[in-house]
Amino acid sequence: MTTTDPAGVLADLRAVLPAAAVVTASDRVDARLTDASGVPAAGRPLALLRPVDTAQVAAALTVAHRHRVPVVPQGALTGLAGGASAVPGALLLDLSGMDAIVRIDPVDQVAVVQPGVVVDDLARAAAAQGLFYAPDPASSDRATVGGTIATNAGGMRCVKYGVTRDVVRSLEVVLADGTVLRTRPATVKAVAGYDLTGLVVGSEGTLAVVTQATLDLLPAPGPVRGTSATFASVADALAAANAIMAGPHRPSTLELLDGVVLAAVAAHVPDAGLPTGARAWLLALTDARAGAEDDLAAFTAACVAHGALTTATADDPSRVEDLLTARRAFNPAMRALRGASLNEDVAVPRARLADLISGLAVIAARTGLVIGSGGHVGDGNLHPVIAYDPSDARQVEAAADAHRQVLDLAGELGGTVTGEHGIGTEKLGAVDAELGPTVRGLQRALKAVFDPLGILNPGKKL
Amino acid sequence: MTTTDPAGVLADLRAVLPAAAVVTASDRVDARLTDASGVPAAGRPLALLRPVDTAQVAAALTVAHRHRVPVVPQGALTGLAGGASAVPGALLLDLSGMDAIVRIDPVDQVAVVQPGVVVDDLARAAAAQGLFYAPDPASSDRATVGGTIATNAGGMRCVKYGVTRDVVRSLEVVLADGTVLRTRPATVKAVAGYDLTGLVVGSEGTLAVVTQATLDLLPAPGPVRGTSATFASVADALAAANAIMAGPHRPSTLELLDGVVLAAVAAHVPDAGLPTGARAWLLALTDARAGAEDDLAAFTAACVAHGALTTATADDPSRVEDLLTARRAFNPAMRALRGASLNEDVAVPRARLADLISGLAVIAARTGLVIGSGGHVGDGNLHPVIAYDPSDARQVEAAADAHRQVLDLAGELGGTVTGEHGIGTEKLGAVDAELGPTVRGLQRALKAVFDPLGILNPGKKL
Repeated sequence: MTTTDPAGVLADLRAVLPAAAVVTASDRVDARLTDASGVPAAGRPLALLRPVDTAQVAAALTVAHRHRVPVVPQGALTGLAGGASAVPGALLLDLSGMDAIVRIDPVDQVAVVQPGVVVDDLARAAAAQGLFYAPDPASSDRATVGGTIATNAGGMRCVKYGVTRDVVRSLEVVLADGTVLRTRPATVKAVAGYDLTGLVVGSEGTLAVVTQATLDLLPAPGPVRGTSATFASVADALAAANAIMAGPHRPSTLELLDGVVLAAVAAHVPDAGLPTGARAWLLALTDARAGAEDDLAAFTAACVAHGALTTATADDPSRVEDLLTARRAFNPAMRALRGASLNEDVAVPRARLADLISGLAVIAARTGLVIGSGGHVGDGNLHPVIAYDPSDARQVEAAADAHRQVLDLAGELGGTVTGEHGIGTEKLGAVDAELGPTVRGLQRALKAVFDPLGILNPGKKL
Repeated sequence: MTTTDPAGVLADLRAVLPAAAVVTASDRVDARLTDASGVPAAGRPLALLRPVDTAQVAAALTVAHRHRVPVVPQGALTGLAGGASAVPGALLLDLSGMDAIVRIDPVDQVAVVQPGVVVDDLARAAAAQGLFYAPDPASSDRATVGGTIATNAGGMRCVKYGVTRDVVRSLEVVLADGTVLRTRPATVKAVAGYDLTGLVVGSEGTLAVVTQATLDLLPAPGPVRGTSATFASVADALAAANAIMAGPHRPSTLELLDGVVLAAVAAHVPDAGLPTGARAWLLALTDARAGAEDDLAAFTAACVAHGALTTATADDPSRVEDLLTARRAFNPAMRALRGASLNEDVAVPRARLADLISGLAVIAARTGLVIGSGGHVGDGNLHPVIAYDPSDARQVEAAADAHRQVLDLAGELGGTVTGEHGIGTEKLGAVDAELGPTVRGLQRALKAVFDPLGILNPGKKL
């Protein structure tokens, strides 16, 4: 779908938008072609749009709809699945300039924000009023709230606080034809309508463009403290993780790294302080305002009871960053192994994590590649990383094979090919197998209700 | 919509269902005509169906679809908005016989259940494994899980644990044409598809029939303890409630009763132990496994700081029921005032509760009726009860007027006409004003995707 009249589209856009909002300078457009997936854009877009308010978004979509021009909503381009990458002939709708925090209400405990607000900026503004914005995707220092809504982003705190959808109370959105609507009243509870809010969250820009969000805040938690432990086997670490989850001390973060990752980290960051012989690492954090000491004792006891080789506790918040050293080195260390990596995002029922880890070892052996896994063990959401040499054609092909096998494995275990990153363009091939033809047909029909001409982020998600 | 060939429909149903699953005996059908709203059924149904498994539900819907016969999904008929009441010529699809708890998984912390399981039975089965099912609608001793999913039911614990939608991980549903699908994998996180799960939750049987649900469980909380307090004004009680919500001690229940209700309760239950002169009552419960004493001290301190006249604490769980006496007497006491009552279910942003309460007083004065309010103050969800004399035609009319004015008031305050009960048939007239024509149009289009012939619970919700 590309327009036969690009000049007409641009003229119509310039008639309804300020000059600064319609960008065709190739250097500025080129800077917005791909997200952090690194998947190359499928073709050149027509222009970059930089609206500053809802009316401009509506005006832009009205023009796009009239001309049947594709529109790709974009935030900070930190997505990992190609969801915000350009499509040929499209208008790139850059919402990062709509970055106003409209209101933070300490009584209702909500923030009303434009979509371009950076997650960490929102978190800081909330903290300044004694409040807490829970979602914490790894890219929170750059990711926009709108992008995290589009992907229903996760993060390390989901194990306690849930995903982005869980904190989105109400949305103002613009439909493909330029119609503006509010999904529901901004009350805690509201059951008059269907859950349009939840439907838009995670739809990766294919249903509507979010122009304002009312987000739940919580009272500020306590300082973060935590315990890490190493184990002789992943099985021991998983048993400890399950014991922690079964107990009354719900961690605010529960992360695992497997032995492959630990070896890579030890090579990449020699002073990470990892003991030799460890085949798994577990991190449990708490942000409880009261009882944090009990939480730490319970985490340590669970690890010791399941054979921890070593344990380390940061009961002083300033030392938590030390505990996170190995976790933060996970992706760079794996990439350094062979020069390139494919980063997966599978999730399985927590009881199937052991099967996932052993299945990954089989895939590594079969493909001759290195696969190391880590991530959000409390949610059953791991990020297997396939390390390969990008200069070796055989390894490049093997990595693509391994990628497909990892996705298949997740499905076989009752899981999903994406726990928090999204489908974008990268995992389109795996969606049919996971969701099945009935759900896929239903999704396409829902898409047609919101966007009958199919102009919103075509070629993504569905 | 009624079939022109009722005998043919019944013959086709009997051909695919066991004899016991197709009931036409008028006494058994008549027992299933209306839910707890008391709204009379709009007409006689064709038959009552009692499926025992998904295949039978699918078979029944296939026949209904072929004949274009309306189908009304039903559970325990405890709904308060007419959502499960019969429509003329319909098949009443009674799912209460599908009451198997398929599986409780203590590692994944999920329950897999059929829709007819009674909420309290699920809660007990979870508790037997050290787990906790959080949703607690007032009718939990009879309400089915399927009914609470259809209505996205709330309850007193929502202030800490969220609503029913928040615990529904995945659903097996049957579409109007008999197609069976699973909404998503049963992982904690899953972002491959649109959120069909959330869309079906709260759709009041208009989109699909739930035949199996995978529900989140939590580790068992501690015993319930709590504090109640009385105040000289609703403003004081609301200030105390806001202070509690702003602090780190999140209550598991936070309930308010206003002065009208307290007077009614004092008259109806003389030994409820309410002090004279109290114009508001607040109850804060905690179910913390650790730190419950700190919670109770914080609740009491907040109440005292905002002028509590009296406080009472149940630090022994066996005495919590005493604290709940006034709350449990709320509806019967209000009904006893004049013989009948209309029970509302409005929700507003918590910061607008004072305006809601004062607006209700204006409506009471204007209509000459008594309106008392109580409910889930932590969620901004109150249940104003309009007391009237059903034998006085003028009061009956005034009550209907007051009902409409209460709904309008909620809208003016940025709220909703229903926080947890649903639209059913009772609040159809208020939906347009709340959601607006654009959302309403979108909802009708979504309905048409799931149920193009409009056979699922016609005349409800939309």
